[in-house]
Amino acid sequence: MRWALGISYNGQGYEGWQSQPSGRTVQDQLEAALSRFAAQPVNTICAGRTDAGVHGLNQVVHFDTAIEREPFSWVRGTNTFLPPDIAVQWAQAVPDEFHSRASAIARRYAYVLLESPVRPSVDAGRVGWVFRPLDGDAMRDAAARLLGEHNFTSFRASGCQAKSPVKTMNRIDIARRGTYWRFEFEANAFLHHMIRNIMDCLVQVGQGLQSPDWMDQVLAARDRDAAGRTFSPDGLYFLGPVYETHWGLPDRTPAYDWLP
Amino acid sequence: MRWALGISYNGQGYEGWQSQPSGRTVQDQLEAALSRFAAQPVNTICAGRTDAGVHGLNQVVHFDTAIEREPFSWVRGTNTFLPPDIAVQWAQAVPDEFHSRASAIARRYAYVLLESPVRPSVDAGRVGWVFRPLDGDAMRDAAARLLGEHNFTSFRASGCQAKSPVKTMNRIDIARRGTYWRFEFEANAFLHHMIRNIMDCLVQVGQGLQSPDWMDQVLAARDRDAAGRTFSPDGLYFLGPVYETHWGLPDRTPAYDWLP
Repeated sequence: MRWALGISYNGQGYEGWQSQPSGRTVQDQLEAALSRFAAQPVNTICAGRTDAGVHGLNQVVHFDTAIEREPFSWVRGTNTFLPPDIAVQWAQAVPDEFHSRASAIARRYAYVLLESPVRPSVDAGRVGWVFRPLDGDAMRDAAARLLGEHNFTSFRASGCQAKSPVKTMNRIDIARRGTYWRFEFEANAFLHHMIRNIMDCLVQVGQGLQSPDWMDQVLAARDRDAAGRTFSPDGLYFLGPVYETHWGLPDRTPAYDWLP
Repeated sequence: MRWALGISYNGQGYEGWQSQPSGRTVQDQLEAALSRFAAQPVNTICAGRTDAGVHGLNQVVHFDTAIEREPFSWVRGTNTFLPPDIAVQWAQAVPDEFHSRASAIARRYAYVLLESPVRPSVDAGRVGWVFRPLDGDAMRDAAARLLGEHNFTSFRASGCQAKSPVKTMNRIDIARRGTYWRFEFEANAFLHHMIRNIMDCLVQVGQGLQSPDWMDQVLAARDRDAAGRTFSPDGLYFLGPVYETHWGLPDRTPAYDWLP
């Protein structure tokens, strides 16, 4: 039987999602816990790998097993063996045709940014930081230029393994709550470092170092050197994949309410 | 000259506020950083000591020094020498009559609680947790019985050094945002573990294990055994002291907006 799980994690203590020889990744922790609970090896496939320091709120994995358990037993049992900063949020049996990555029709990410003269403290590792004030309207103007289907080569990390740099950006929302900004991105798929590279450009526009139409030039250049640097992973949250509703999977977890 | 500073910190990595031989306290870190910046020993007095694992959003300290610096130099310079989870938020010169503890006319704390079948993960160490649903109206009814001047002996830790168990509770607000509850307390002063002991009673009422009028009995008993256990420190935030407005000190920091 095939199972889908929703996972939340704080990425600060891990070398990203994907399994490494060090064992210090979220996938390694999850598979070790699942294997202990199932008393047999369990291998998982995830909807979207996250980099070191990036957090997950509704990462989705699937795996196949002959072990029969109630859905909430998978949640509670696996969480017993997971470290405190990773938790299975839900478990659901799915048809064999379901695939956590291939069935995803879109992915959503949030970036949380502290705008303050003083660096983060209580929220260190969980937010990006700018000390100069940001202009929300200018950033929204720049972000709108990324909507729709584009060749995002300018925002693509050199090691990116995606087959094509052409992606469709469905939505970029930029909202402020007190001293925190929250950027939310939805695309059919993202290139490696794409959001962190876009974030640096949006911040440059927000601080008045570039005009909003500079974003058109960056996009048109199809050259990584045309864009800014790669912004910090600290404020990046993988909100999770989007699936067609007929699969009946939860599209958010309680952890969503933690974000400013 | 006397200076007041506002400090934000994540208490997870520290053995509380007060200096210890181990050096692993917030006060030790702050005084080491201030002393390096001032190039001479600096000793601080705080508005309210916090326990191990408890966070601070606007802890206030004062100290005396002959060193002359601009206010924001104290902020930026000291932060250079502080670990990432502690930051000075503001610095202000104050008259010699100001005393961070003695001048405080009230203190404010918040307790953040996750209500979910699944334990915390991305927010581990920053929130308390209950898996059974809470009844907000029942908790507000119980909390209202604590308002005003009372003998809070039932909520006092055995090692508490306060001169009197009689304190005045000005305000208890209980609000929900999604799966998180936020409890906010203001009193002229708090006894040791008072909020964590009250929290356990409020949660018992919220889960229907006790009725709201049980809080009257607990209060009247003046006996620590009458109340519940001491709730986890994870969700407790010292919001800071309240001073008379003529001192002109900030009563909050950007870190406030981080709380759900």
